[in-house]
Amino acid sequence: MRDLKSWLEKIEPVDRGILGSVQRRLDSQTKPQGSLGRLEELCLILAAAQGSDRPKCEKKIIFTLAGDHGVVEEGVSAYPQSVTAQMVLNFVKGGAGVNVLARHAGCDIVVVDMGVGSDLDFSGYLDRKIGYGTSNFTRGPAMTREEAERAVLTGIDLATEYDFDILGTGDMGIGNTSPSSAIASVMTGIDVRSLTGRGTGIDDDGFEKKVDAIQRGIALNSPDPSDPLDVLSKVGGFEIGGIAGLIIGAAVKRRLAVVDGFISTAGAMIAVGLKKELSDYFVLSHLSAEQGHDRLVGFLQKKPLLDLGMRLGEGTGAALGIELIDSALALYDGMATFDEAGVDKKKG
Amino acid sequence: MRDLKSWLEKIEPVDRGILGSVQRRLDSQTKPQGSLGRLEELCLILAAAQGSDRPKCEKKIIFTLAGDHGVVEEGVSAYPQSVTAQMVLNFVKGGAGVNVLARHAGCDIVVVDMGVGSDLDFSGYLDRKIGYGTSNFTRGPAMTREEAERAVLTGIDLATEYDFDILGTGDMGIGNTSPSSAIASVMTGIDVRSLTGRGTGIDDDGFEKKVDAIQRGIALNSPDPSDPLDVLSKVGGFEIGGIAGLIIGAAVKRRLAVVDGFISTAGAMIAVGLKKELSDYFVLSHLSAEQGHDRLVGFLQKKPLLDLGMRLGEGTGAALGIELIDSALALYDGMATFDEAGVDKKKG
Repeated sequence: MRDLKSWLEKIEPVDRGILGSVQRRLDSQTKPQGSLGRLEELCLILAAAQGSDRPKCEKKIIFTLAGDHGVVEEGVSAYPQSVTAQMVLNFVKGGAGVNVLARHAGCDIVVVDMGVGSDLDFSGYLDRKIGYGTSNFTRGPAMTREEAERAVLTGIDLATEYDFDILGTGDMGIGNTSPSSAIASVMTGIDVRSLTGRGTGIDDDGFEKKVDAIQRGIALNSPDPSDPLDVLSKVGGFEIGGIAGLIIGAAVKRRLAVVDGFISTAGAMIAVGLKKELSDYFVLSHLSAEQGHDRLVGFLQKKPLLDLGMRLGEGTGAALGIELIDSALALYDGMATFDEAGVDKKKG
Repeated sequence: MRDLKSWLEKIEPVDRGILGSVQRRLDSQTKPQGSLGRLEELCLILAAAQGSDRPKCEKKIIFTLAGDHGVVEEGVSAYPQSVTAQMVLNFVKGGAGVNVLARHAGCDIVVVDMGVGSDLDFSGYLDRKIGYGTSNFTRGPAMTREEAERAVLTGIDLATEYDFDILGTGDMGIGNTSPSSAIASVMTGIDVRSLTGRGTGIDDDGFEKKVDAIQRGIALNSPDPSDPLDVLSKVGGFEIGGIAGLIIGAAVKRRLAVVDGFISTAGAMIAVGLKKELSDYFVLSHLSAEQGHDRLVGFLQKKPLLDLGMRLGEGTGAALGIELIDSALALYDGMATFDEAGVDKKKG
């Protein structure tokens, strides 16, 4: 297994030299210049990432990474931990939200056990289990630094092993908004309460417990914001590290990653913390309804594609985002030019 | 031909009695309640419109209505009027933006000449021409009241003749942001300048000419905001009346209309002005980049589904909106319930 440092060194800046050619093609098409707004921008982003003025978006894949979290002992989630494994089975059987939206968008799904808290007695997923859930970060680090690095490397391996033109991230893990809020607070310096939401739907009492647990976890472990692997190991999660790795692996292959919601954005923050050039290799699919996501988005200086009040995770937002990017590229590939269509150009 | 009044009387209120049943199904599915946000809301809207707790979104259709505008004589557009007819040919040949996005979303397109300024020497569109472009509204009414009613009735006929589960509106007409801004200003009472944008891309000088022409048109014709047919006839357009009719016709059939951008929203304002219950039978697909669209949206008390900086018209936003609604309904139809998937429910 290549080490993380050498993977990060392999990442090249996106190809901005290609943008003029892409823009010229867009401007030759039968529409007022710029009138397709962010759909045009998506063509530019995709082309720069792939280093080609004829980028592809044929093979689409979503990785849904699952993991459990020791911090659920603190009463931070509205659902029992058993749901993580049950939902992995739901993914495998094709009945979850991400399955439906991935089918609609023409995406394959790869379901990965990054650290579910139990052994899974069914097939149809990839076993990349790093541990049986993280440790409760209010009592010590969530995982070792070695495990944190292994989580990221596992994500990189997934992205480099599979063939795709565009990759979506997804997560499943009861309790995983807590480590995501913790990572976000450490990386941004914003207070925990502002970055903490109701997750799957805890009540006021649960919310206070959650804020308190995250605050205690950060105070106890003192994660170093300048060292993303330290943050991931102290207060993170296996699937969150995996998501950071997916983004890195996609960038190594010069492919764009479409980041899902709150949890995936925490993974993206780890990735960008490891190498800032990664920022050009992903888009945020949607603004989550989870409290604080707007702050994470602002920190990353990104504008999500969609704002639909969603907060399901799994890769559901990524699937919608990929469908939109596919539409954008279909326009780029399929629209007639002014010359082809015999349409008069702008006056003057 | 049935008269407009009798069509409007046929419109029933949407079926709110069905909403409890739809919400129960949504809440039984394997996700935290409400976590699909506006996708859940779209299922409710679609069900209420269709009067069924198992609404359909299989047969999807976009009507792209074309018309020309006498006001282009005032120098209000960046493109020559010849482009309207040329773009109709582009639609027929399948090379325009709306063609690409409709194919992507699985929508049929029906292209209609509502009032293009010339005879079209090709086939593949419906001839419903009411006139060779409207008259220049800075010199008199854009059309007669009889023509305005005929434009709306033509849209109703189109919607009632064709079979569909969901309908998208679209427009083509060089200069048609001017009548749209004029209609919007009259109907809302907001000043013309605040509701006027650059359309296909006029410069500062053109913008001033445009604002001035719209202001003069309104001053000369004194359209009555309480009489939408008067507004349509004085400062409107044939395709805009047709769009109002499409919305009415869809509602008569208890089908949802997905309204495109700035021009289509002006059509929706005419429709709602004719019968306020129509408001429950359409959604706004996207917030246009055209200046003032946000004010029109506010007037209609709607939240557009998408905000992508688009300003192309044709039905491009409607196609994306329909694709999103199709995704929402796929979730409603395809997601497993907690019982089916054997997933534990929320604690407590």
